[in-house]
Amino acid sequence: MSFSTETPLLDTVSSPADLKRFSDAQLEQVADELRRATITAVSKTGGHLGAGLGVVELTVALHAIFDAPRDKIIWDVSHQCYPHKILTGRRDRMGSLRQENGLSGFTKRSESPYDPFGAAHSSTSISAALGFAVARDLGGNCDTGHGDAIAVIGDGAMSAGMAYEAMNNAGHLKKRLIVILNDNEMSIAPPVGALSSYLSQLYAGAPFQDLKEAAKGAVSFLPEPFREGAKRAKDLLKGMAVGGTLFEALGFSYVGPIDGHDLEQLLPVLRTVKDRAHGPILIHVVTKKGKGYGPAEESADRGHARAKFDLVTGEQKKAPSNAPSYTKVFADALLQEAADDPMICAVTAAMPDGTGLDLFAERYPSRTFDVGIAEQHGVTFCAGLAAGGLKPFCAMYSTFLQRGYDQVVHDVAIQRLPVRFAIDRAGLVGADGATHAGSYDVAYLANLPGFVVMAAADEAELKHMVATAVAHDEGPIAFRYPRGEGQGVEMPERGEVLPIGKGRMIREGSKVAILSFGTRLGEVLTACEALEAKGISPTVADARFAKPLDEDLILKLAADHEALITIEEGAIGGFGSHVAHLLAEAEVFDTGLKFRSMVLPDIFIDQASPQAMYDVAGLNAEDIEKKVLDVLGVAAIGKRA
Amino acid sequence: MSFSTETPLLDTVSSPADLKRFSDAQLEQVADELRRATITAVSKTGGHLGAGLGVVELTVALHAIFDAPRDKIIWDVSHQCYPHKILTGRRDRMGSLRQENGLSGFTKRSESPYDPFGAAHSSTSISAALGFAVARDLGGNCDTGHGDAIAVIGDGAMSAGMAYEAMNNAGHLKKRLIVILNDNEMSIAPPVGALSSYLSQLYAGAPFQDLKEAAKGAVSFLPEPFREGAKRAKDLLKGMAVGGTLFEALGFSYVGPIDGHDLEQLLPVLRTVKDRAHGPILIHVVTKKGKGYGPAEESADRGHARAKFDLVTGEQKKAPSNAPSYTKVFADALLQEAADDPMICAVTAAMPDGTGLDLFAERYPSRTFDVGIAEQHGVTFCAGLAAGGLKPFCAMYSTFLQRGYDQVVHDVAIQRLPVRFAIDRAGLVGADGATHAGSYDVAYLANLPGFVVMAAADEAELKHMVATAVAHDEGPIAFRYPRGEGQGVEMPERGEVLPIGKGRMIREGSKVAILSFGTRLGEVLTACEALEAKGISPTVADARFAKPLDEDLILKLAADHEALITIEEGAIGGFGSHVAHLLAEAEVFDTGLKFRSMVLPDIFIDQASPQAMYDVAGLNAEDIEKKVLDVLGVAAIGKRA
Repeated sequence: MSFSTETPLLDTVSSPADLKRFSDAQLEQVADELRRATITAVSKTGGHLGAGLGVVELTVALHAIFDAPRDKIIWDVSHQCYPHKILTGRRDRMGSLRQENGLSGFTKRSESPYDPFGAAHSSTSISAALGFAVARDLGGNCDTGHGDAIAVIGDGAMSAGMAYEAMNNAGHLKKRLIVILNDNEMSIAPPVGALSSYLSQLYAGAPFQDLKEAAKGAVSFLPEPFREGAKRAKDLLKGMAVGGTLFEALGFSYVGPIDGHDLEQLLPVLRTVKDRAHGPILIHVVTKKGKGYGPAEESADRGHARAKFDLVTGEQKKAPSNAPSYTKVFADALLQEAADDPMICAVTAAMPDGTGLDLFAERYPSRTFDVGIAEQHGVTFCAGLAAGGLKPFCAMYSTFLQRGYDQVVHDVAIQRLPVRFAIDRAGLVGADGATHAGSYDVAYLANLPGFVVMAAADEAELKHMVATAVAHDEGPIAFRYPRGEGQGVEMPERGEVLPIGKGRMIREGSKVAILSFGTRLGEVLTACEALEAKGISPTVADARFAKPLDEDLILKLAADHEALITIEEGAIGGFGSHVAHLLAEAEVFDTGLKFRSMVLPDIFIDQASPQAMYDVAGLNAEDIEKKVLDVLGVAAIGKRA
Repeated sequence: MSFSTETPLLDTVSSPADLKRFSDAQLEQVADELRRATITAVSKTGGHLGAGLGVVELTVALHAIFDAPRDKIIWDVSHQCYPHKILTGRRDRMGSLRQENGLSGFTKRSESPYDPFGAAHSSTSISAALGFAVARDLGGNCDTGHGDAIAVIGDGAMSAGMAYEAMNNAGHLKKRLIVILNDNEMSIAPPVGALSSYLSQLYAGAPFQDLKEAAKGAVSFLPEPFREGAKRAKDLLKGMAVGGTLFEALGFSYVGPIDGHDLEQLLPVLRTVKDRAHGPILIHVVTKKGKGYGPAEESADRGHARAKFDLVTGEQKKAPSNAPSYTKVFADALLQEAADDPMICAVTAAMPDGTGLDLFAERYPSRTFDVGIAEQHGVTFCAGLAAGGLKPFCAMYSTFLQRGYDQVVHDVAIQRLPVRFAIDRAGLVGADGATHAGSYDVAYLANLPGFVVMAAADEAELKHMVATAVAHDEGPIAFRYPRGEGQGVEMPERGEVLPIGKGRMIREGSKVAILSFGTRLGEVLTACEALEAKGISPTVADARFAKPLDEDLILKLAADHEALITIEEGAIGGFGSHVAHLLAEAEVFDTGLKFRSMVLPDIFIDQASPQAMYDVAGLNAEDIEKKVLDVLGVAAIGKRA
């Protein structure tokens, strides 16, 4: 197999306006070239591949027919935006994708006027587009002018509550608004939820329709059935004839389904919609994730996210890892615990691979629940499971758990239900950038009465915390751990149940004590090595718990040292703030303790390697060393020296 | 008009088991008596009236046919639970409803085994019921045993995304699960959203059906059309004939609509469902909020929430107020600003009355958006409005804004979009109890980069903050204010734009400085009066901003006093934590400053008067006085004395 990187037509496109001069046939060629340019770019940088390949034709069609940036094209989640970036003046920077100082892997308002609304979390696009549509009709002043508002949203994202909320509101307001449902039967994981079955029924086994009818906004069908054996096809035909789709129930006109890889369908439908749409309209486009690149199409996740890879074989060039990832350690630990305890079950919100629950699902399919992109429901579902006597592990990324925050407060914490929160991707996450940072969970959980909040310092600690969570039946408990590989520490055979609210001493020193919460402990110890060379020997402790605090440990550290420094991979309001509150109430500040709290700084940090992001954050070994020197330097001339 | 309080049959009911011995005809009488008992109870205590009256027959039917507490009846929101409480052994305590140490106005697990899952925020019931259904099927150990899981959810609550997420998941899992859609066309406000129109189409203009058909789980219709002139009735009939309802799209069997006030319909349908249901089933019950009590039926909100009232006339016995409520001050200030600035618009999530935006909607209907119970969408919709050049005010209660937290982070803060958050019901709220406390907003907003976070010390300050928010176009800004009436201060003609990040001195004193954030300022000043009598004269400042902090002011207070005390109506992690972080970084603790931070305590505080709740919280004048005495008492023997 060979792979051509020649893109003669695409080379003449520096902005969407250049697409207007092409014939439909030429647009087909542009699409082919755009697909290859996308593959070439991602082969060098890694990134989200499958999603972009699935929308190549749709991207070309949208930019050929609509007038961005005046028309607002809003890509939901926006990991499918690479072809869009290539067409909107960013092709020459694609080599910097997802790297420090490079292009974001998502749309970003500050990056381009063609990105009217950034994204990275799912299901926000319809809400945002409705906002633009309303602002347009009310005369809002937008730098790029106001035209059509177009949301492009996947079937997975459509399963999230906020998409439904937005449609319900849009259907009520009746503003002109275009929603393109990009139905590829895959969000990140295989499809779950009744909506997915429903959507596939909408096109399964349906007969051909005259394209001219489609162009008039009527029902069209795919040229060939994507799927066999639809039981309810006949019913659905009837349903569609009377306009009975779910989307119509919510006040949208429904057009489709149409083949999203066929420009002969896409172009006339979009032209017609542009000319004639009034009120909210949903165009149901069926695509294939990873389309047009064999290695992606054939992979289980259809090339969702890829390391750098070989263009011809698709083989990924990932550096070999030394230690297991935290995610894998969590998954293995949970499997081990679940073997002994049939009450353990696990809930993920459309992230079975990312959270490691795919392994759990293999072994315990009836005890694993992928609720879809539905964190609100996921958390309260866990509360119900706990009230019903099970031991649910709610495994979510820190940043996505924000979606279920009210449910954590209202359904879990207030009722003291023993839901176990496994919080992955805590702290800074690297290439996904600021939108995926797990910065806030400690602050937003540790002030909830009755909550237990832990952070693992290394992968062995994580294993202990899984065991601790299994054993803790008195109320909610959370443990957080970062993205990436562990420290390579020796792993215990079995996780131990940790005493609640007790930290551990790591090294005894003098003058300054560093109290670490989470995986900065490694950096703390590196800093200590450098400090030893300068004759300074800090005491180091691992707090393990942000709540309840190990008051004895903290007050002893405060009493025995001139200075106490806390460090955590989180924003202000979390662990350090709880320690400060304790010290204030215990009247320790009155004695002149030099207290410092190292937290994530008050900025959103753009993508880079996690190490580089923590450099920006000032939370690496050198920063810790400097903080110790500073605090002791002040101490040397201070009252307590 | 007379009102009988005789309830001979109901008097014999001490638990739902007692209903089993009644004939259907007797159950009708029980329902009548239960309605009167509910009205009588609420006339004495105040509380949510209309919702309970709407489900009297449904409550009787559910308890007559199902076997609570083994069968889990989960009332969504649960302000309609008063008849349920009366039937489940709590009738004798109804006089204590919503009062200190009394019955909660909502369901509550700790209150009764008949309340398997507490609520107060909306739309959680299907998720919780699904949790119970799954726990049952996996052998979870539940104290009350496992039977059917039944969610009773209103049409307003059904508009929230999490209800859709839960249905999507339930439709996929196919467990036996019963959802009763209590369609009363009212959540708290008049219905909004496309779903509401859809539901009314489902029963408008439909013909009679044989009840026996209904009893077999087939489609039934109301005995009389509730509404005239359904345009799409014919289409819908066709749609229903092929099972094309929105609920069926989500994998539910659909039964209904049936008349929720007619036990002759309710009882056979529920019996059939109980006997034959497999998989998830939705029963569409149409009811009338406030049913059976003239004064409630005739009021605009159908008796949603009531002060104590006269049984016969329905006249409410509310104490006359001295000062305008904060809500009203906000609404008036926004109206005043909007008159000069056509870019100002306002968004509420189903709380037009509660947030005062009903007034705004009257004057500016095209600039007011009630998105329904849909905080996730509401926040991102505001982000879109701001990106489109408008000045959106997102008016939500603190506790409900938790529902849109991720959207605040991801769509507003990261993009620095100038959404204005008007946060009502900040702090403790009184009769609604712990579930409605606005405890966390400062903590969860003030650690977001670029956010401005204010709290009003009184109603004049609130007016200034509205003006400040209008003027602030550089990024997101929030201002919080409590439930209830203002302090009665003189109101300025027009709100002034406050300098961002600057507090104000209230009184100059010595030794101890109190830095207040929010309406505790009044209590602080009361405490100062008492302290003056003891020869202590604290300095008092109003911080106005939790972010950005007035660093100059705070450092000066710290430098000029032995002790600095912060106070706020919020949990740890908020204002006081930000001040502590500043003091640490500025090396002020090193000098032995006596710092204290008065925050909400680490408990969920049950309903009582706000004053009584703040007593429990330790944030009233006496507590402040004591804190000052304590800190100075220590100071007298400390190093800096």
